[in-house]
Amino acid sequence: MLEELHNLPSSLKSLELCDLEKLSAEIRSELIAKLAEVGGHIGPNLGIVELSVALHVVFNSPVDKLVFDVSHQSLPHKILTGRYKGFKKFHQDQGISAFTNIDESEHDHFNMGHTSTSISLAAGLAKSRDILGSVENVVAIIGDGSLSGGEAFEGLNIAGDLNSNFIVIVNDNEMSIDPNSGALYKGLAELRRTNGKAENNIFKFLGFDYAYLEEGNDVGKLIEMLESVKGIDHPVVVHIHTKKGLGFPIAEKNPEIWHYHVPFNAATGENSSNLVDKKRPLIVSSTDIIIDHILEEKNSVVVVPGAPLLGRKLQETVPERYLDVGIAEGTGVAYASGIAKGGVKPYIVVASTFIQRAYDQIIQDWTLNDTPATLIVLGAGISSSDYTHVGIYDIPMLSNIANLVYLAPTSAAECKKMLNWAAKQDFPTALRTSTGDASGVEDRDVSDVQVEVQEIEQVKSVSVSGGVIPNKNFIVRSEVVKKGTRIAIIGLGLFFQKALEASEKIKEKLNIKPTVINPRFISHLDEELLSSLPADHEIVVILEDGIIEGGFGQKVSAFYASQKNSTSRIQCLIRGAKREHIDSIAYDDLMKRYRLTPEQIVDDIRDAL
Amino acid sequence: MLEELHNLPSSLKSLELCDLEKLSAEIRSELIAKLAEVGGHIGPNLGIVELSVALHVVFNSPVDKLVFDVSHQSLPHKILTGRYKGFKKFHQDQGISAFTNIDESEHDHFNMGHTSTSISLAAGLAKSRDILGSVENVVAIIGDGSLSGGEAFEGLNIAGDLNSNFIVIVNDNEMSIDPNSGALYKGLAELRRTNGKAENNIFKFLGFDYAYLEEGNDVGKLIEMLESVKGIDHPVVVHIHTKKGLGFPIAEKNPEIWHYHVPFNAATGENSSNLVDKKRPLIVSSTDIIIDHILEEKNSVVVVPGAPLLGRKLQETVPERYLDVGIAEGTGVAYASGIAKGGVKPYIVVASTFIQRAYDQIIQDWTLNDTPATLIVLGAGISSSDYTHVGIYDIPMLSNIANLVYLAPTSAAECKKMLNWAAKQDFPTALRTSTGDASGVEDRDVSDVQVEVQEIEQVKSVSVSGGVIPNKNFIVRSEVVKKGTRIAIIGLGLFFQKALEASEKIKEKLNIKPTVINPRFISHLDEELLSSLPADHEIVVILEDGIIEGGFGQKVSAFYASQKNSTSRIQCLIRGAKREHIDSIAYDDLMKRYRLTPEQIVDDIRDAL
Repeated sequence: MLEELHNLPSSLKSLELCDLEKLSAEIRSELIAKLAEVGGHIGPNLGIVELSVALHVVFNSPVDKLVFDVSHQSLPHKILTGRYKGFKKFHQDQGISAFTNIDESEHDHFNMGHTSTSISLAAGLAKSRDILGSVENVVAIIGDGSLSGGEAFEGLNIAGDLNSNFIVIVNDNEMSIDPNSGALYKGLAELRRTNGKAENNIFKFLGFDYAYLEEGNDVGKLIEMLESVKGIDHPVVVHIHTKKGLGFPIAEKNPEIWHYHVPFNAATGENSSNLVDKKRPLIVSSTDIIIDHILEEKNSVVVVPGAPLLGRKLQETVPERYLDVGIAEGTGVAYASGIAKGGVKPYIVVASTFIQRAYDQIIQDWTLNDTPATLIVLGAGISSSDYTHVGIYDIPMLSNIANLVYLAPTSAAECKKMLNWAAKQDFPTALRTSTGDASGVEDRDVSDVQVEVQEIEQVKSVSVSGGVIPNKNFIVRSEVVKKGTRIAIIGLGLFFQKALEASEKIKEKLNIKPTVINPRFISHLDEELLSSLPADHEIVVILEDGIIEGGFGQKVSAFYASQKNSTSRIQCLIRGAKREHIDSIAYDDLMKRYRLTPEQIVDDIRDAL
Repeated sequence: MLEELHNLPSSLKSLELCDLEKLSAEIRSELIAKLAEVGGHIGPNLGIVELSVALHVVFNSPVDKLVFDVSHQSLPHKILTGRYKGFKKFHQDQGISAFTNIDESEHDHFNMGHTSTSISLAAGLAKSRDILGSVENVVAIIGDGSLSGGEAFEGLNIAGDLNSNFIVIVNDNEMSIDPNSGALYKGLAELRRTNGKAENNIFKFLGFDYAYLEEGNDVGKLIEMLESVKGIDHPVVVHIHTKKGLGFPIAEKNPEIWHYHVPFNAATGENSSNLVDKKRPLIVSSTDIIIDHILEEKNSVVVVPGAPLLGRKLQETVPERYLDVGIAEGTGVAYASGIAKGGVKPYIVVASTFIQRAYDQIIQDWTLNDTPATLIVLGAGISSSDYTHVGIYDIPMLSNIANLVYLAPTSAAECKKMLNWAAKQDFPTALRTSTGDASGVEDRDVSDVQVEVQEIEQVKSVSVSGGVIPNKNFIVRSEVVKKGTRIAIIGLGLFFQKALEASEKIKEKLNIKPTVINPRFISHLDEELLSSLPADHEIVVILEDGIIEGGFGQKVSAFYASQKNSTSRIQCLIRGAKREHIDSIAYDDLMKRYRLTPEQIVDDIRDAL
C-alpha cells in the first residue's frame, strides 16, 4: 500500500478507516523488518504508528505543525510524509536519519534528539503564530518518560498560559527508556486507572483542558479524539495510553531492552551477526568496571539520569544503591551533591551529550559546595553519532570549572585505577570514558594517579564568607610512556591509542622516535613535564577526542605561548573536532576530516618541522 | 530581646507565644533598619520572619536540616542561629553574607544562590539519612516563584517517591522577583482560594501529602502546623500563604521594586545617598539601549527568564512583546528558538550567571536549529558579587559552541551598533554586556561590525541528513584603536577601558607606545590582524573580563602557538580571573589579585620584555 500512496500525507485524508488500519499494520511490519536489519528505536516507533496516522489524517501538516519530543519515535511520521524511500535506506547512504531533521522535510520543524524540549519549542511556534496573526494548529507529542525532565514542566507552565490553540499529546506507554521512576508516574497511573477522571490532574492544574483516551493504538478512536481538539482556541492535553513495542511480542514483553536495539533476528529476537557498528571501532566498555567498583565500595550509590541498562546488575544485587532520577540530569547532579553532603558516596553516570543539561548544577549545586561526588561521563568523544548525541563538548564544559578535577583514562585498567583514586578524594572529581578501540593500550601496565596539592593564595575578604572556595591547585603528574626526541605526542583518553599509532608511523616515515605522553588529567597540566619538553623537542602534538575550542590543547598552547624565553615557546599542533555540528558521519571520514589518521599526522608534522 | 537571647536557636523553644511574636516584630524592625542602611532582599526576608521563628521552635537544627531555596530569604534564619552580630555588620567587613553559607554556620547546609535547587539538594540529604539509618527531619523551604524552574519539578518528582520523612514548605507570596507568570500560578491561586481544597493539586499528583495554611505569617498557627508534620514518615508539602514585604507598607504595595533594593530612607522609601556600590565602578547600563532597539524593530519580542524590572517599559508600551517565562532559562532559550523559527525575532535577555542553566538548550534547541535568535548576556564579568552570582563562565560556555557568534561591545554606543548588526543576521548571535566603568571609551567613534563569511568545507555524508550544520566560518575584523609597536594590548568588552588605561601607563613608564585592539568578537579571531602583529611587536597582552580557562586569550594563544615560524610565536600574557569560586571580594582587590591594575600590567610587561 505504501508503494502506491502518493501525495502523502494529504492522500491519507481520503482513505477509509479499514484502509488506515491496514496501512498501520503495514508500517508496523516495515518497521520491524527494517529495524531488525539495521537496528534502531523499536519500542517507541512501534507504539506510535496509529497516532502518527491519525495525526496526518486530522491535521494539515506542514501548515499545522507537529513537534515530536526527542523524535526517536518519528519514523512512522517520516514514512507518512513522503520519506518511504529514504526509510528503506535507513542507516545507509541516502537514507533518512533517526530523528526529525529540518533538511529532510518541511514536515520536520526542528533538529531534535534530547528529551523534554518539544513543548517549549512548539510554544515558540504558537507565540509567533499569534503575533503574526495566523491560525494553524500547533501540536507537541511527548512521551510520559520525557515529562520527568524539567524543561517539559517549564514548557507546560508557559504553554498552559497561552490564550490560543495549543495541543499537547501525552503518549503514555508507562515507560521511559527503562521503567519510569518518580512520583509523577503514580499520578499518571491514577489518571489511566480512572480513565482520566482522577481527582488530581497536573495538566488541569497547569491551565490545560484535558481529554483521555485509553485506546491509544486505535486509529478510529484517535481520529475522533483529534478531530474534537482540532482548531481549539486554548491549550489542551490529550492523554493517550499506548503500548510500547506493539505488534512485536518480544519487544512488548521486554520494553526496556527493546527501546533501542542493535540488528536482530525478527523471528527470534536474537542479535544478528551484524552486531559491530561499522561506523565505529571496537568497544571498550567501562560500565562493568564502574558497577564492580560501586559494589565493592560500602555506602556508595549510583545516580543515573535516564541511562538505560547500566543499573541492572546493581538493581538485582543492591537495589537501594541504584537511584534513577528520571530524565533529569540537573537534578541528578544536585541530588548527588546532597547525598555526598549527607555522608554517602555518590557516582553520577551520564553520557557526555546529556551532561550538558547540568552545567549550572555542576557549578552551583556541586563544585561550589565542594562535595565529594564523582561524575562518570560515558560515550565522550568524536563519533559517528547524529548531531544530537555526539559527545564533543564535555571538555570545554567540565575542564574549566573551578574545583572540579577531570581525568581521562586511556584504558579500562586505568579507568579502574582512577575510580579508586577518586573514591579517596574529598572534593568533586570526574572521569571521562569513551567507547572505542583501546586494544593497543589494554595490556600496558598502568601506574597510579599522582598528584600533589599546592597551597593556594588566600585573599582578604570583605565579609565572614568572602574569599575563595579553596581551589584544588594541583601539581599533577602525566605519564611519559615513551621517551623520545624532537616530537612529543600527547594523546588524551581514548586518543592515547592514536598517539601510539602515530608514533609508530613517525618512526617509520620520518625516522624520528617521538615522546608519547598520557596526560591523565584534562583539567590540570603537568607544567613541570611540559616545561622540560622544549629542551629536546621541536613540536608538541595534542590529540584531543572532542572539540578543540576551549579544550585541553588550548590549555597546553596557552602554557607555551606565555613563556618568556622564545625557545620555550614550542610549536603546538592540536588535532581534534572543529567547532561544527557533525551528523552521522562515518568515524573514518571524521578522522580524515580532522586530520587524525596516522598518515595525516605524519604529513602535518613533516610540514611543521 | 535579640541581645539577650543566648544559645539560639534552642533557647527559642522555651519562649511563650507572645514572646515569639515580639521577637518576630523585633527581627522585622531590625531587617528594615539594616537593609535601609546597606540594601538587600527586603521583600523575601520580611515575608518569612514568622516561618523562620516557627521552624526553629519546632525543629532541632542543625540535626534537623533546613534548606532554603535561593536562600536570599535566610536572614531571619541567620539571626536565629547565632549570627545576630554578623547581621549587624551585613554587607560590611566581618558581616554575614546574603545567602546561606557552609563556612558561616553548621545551620547552613549548602552555599546557594540560584533558584529551584533546594528540593533536589534536600532529597539528597534525605537519601543519605535513609541509607545511614538516621531519623532527622529534612525540610526544604521554597517560594512559589522558584517552583517555575524545572529543577524544582524534577526534585518534586524524586522526593515524592521517597518512602521516608521529607517536608517541603511552599512559601507562597504570590510573587516571583516580578509578578508570577505562567500557568502554575493559576493552580496555586485556586489552592489559596479554596483554602487548599481545590480539586486539582499538583503536589498530591506528585505523591505528596498536603496541608494548607492561609495565615502564613501567624507564628502560633505555623508552629501548630509544623508540629503536625514533624517526624512524618512520608513526603509532605506544607503550603503557606505569606505576604512579601510584610511590615514595611511601602514594600507591601510594590513588591516587585522591593524584592531587592539599594539603600533607602526607611521613612519615605526614597533611595538614600549611598547609591553607588562602592565595590564597583560606575555603571553603564545597556538595558535602555536594548529596550529602545526592540521597540524600533517590528515583529520582535524579548524573552526574559526571571529578570527583574527590565521589561517594565516594554510591558507598558507593547505588553505582547514582553514574554516572561518564569525562572526558566532552559525553556527561555528553547521558546525563543521556536519563536525565531516561527518568523518573529526574539531577544533573550539573561544574566551571565543564569545563562549557565541553558547550556544544553543553547546547543540543542537553538544553535543546532540555526535559528536567528539573539541572546543578550547581562552583568558579565569579574565583580564583587557573591560566588553564586559572579558572571565569569559565559565566555568558556558560549564562545566554544558551534554556530554561535558571540560579540563583546566595549561601550553602550557599540552595543547599539552590534544590536543592529545582530538584527540583520539569519543565525544565532549573542552579545556580552557588563556593568562597569566605560567612561573613557564612551566618546569614541564606534565603527560598524565587519565580517566576511567564508565558504566551508562540505563533507561526504552517510545519510540524507548526514554532514555538518554549516558553521559560521567568519573572517572577522577587530578594531585597531591605537597603532603602536612592541606591545599589543587586546581589551575584551568592558576591559577595553583597561587596555586604554594600561596603554597610557606603558607610555609613561616604559616609553613605549603600544597598539590597542578592540577584538569585537569573542568567538572568532581576526587571524589576519593577529598574524601581522609579530612583525613589529614582542608581546600580546589579552585582558579578559572572565575566567581565563577555556576563554578568548587561550584561543589567541593557541593561534600563535600553532605557527610554524618561531618568530611568529609571539609571547602572550593573559590576564583575567583564575579558576576559583570568588565570593564578595571588593572589585579593586580582585583587580590586584588577578594582576589587572595598570601598574601591575606595566610591571608584568617589563618582566616579560
